[in-house]
Amino acid sequence: MKAKVHIRLKQGVLDPQGKAIEGALSGLGFDGVDNVRQGKFIELEINESDPAKARTQIEAMCQKLLANPVMENYDIEVLG
Amino acid sequence: MKAKVHIRLKQGVLDPQGKAIEGALSGLGFDGVDNVRQGKFIELEINESDPAKARTQIEAMCQKLLANPVMENYDIEVLG
Repeated sequence: MKAKVHIRLKQGVLDPQGKAIEGALSGLGFDGVDNVRQGKFIELEINESDPAKARTQIEAMCQKLLANPVMENYDIEVLG
Repeated sequence: MKAKVHIRLKQGVLDPQGKAIEGALSGLGFDGVDNVRQGKFIELEINESDPAKARTQIEAMCQKLLANPVMENYDIEVLG
């Protein structure tokens, strides 16, 4: 079973990487770009046929390793 | 207008970060996880009301800065 996980900084947490991208875009002449936020995106395959169990396992992975729950939010999408 | 960009390594390009996550998950006791690939995920706001023009601009940003078109693919999603 395939799954996708999006990990992004919580609203209000400063995103220096996003700011750097914003500055670089503006330096390249792309004006009017705002609120750039960069996050992570993880695709994985899990050997589990029950979508609910797969989600529970991936939730545990996010809590323990993939995300920093203090600063980051995550979304889990289990694909068929 | 908001947009999301997903950037991932092309199929066949080695993903050491994904491999590291896979190894760490297995070390934490999460077995049966395979094919982990990590990508980037960028959210931005663009001052452009025409979705087609916004997409063209973001495409140019991906080519010039956001992605490495030699090794990476990108998907652009323009949100209403």
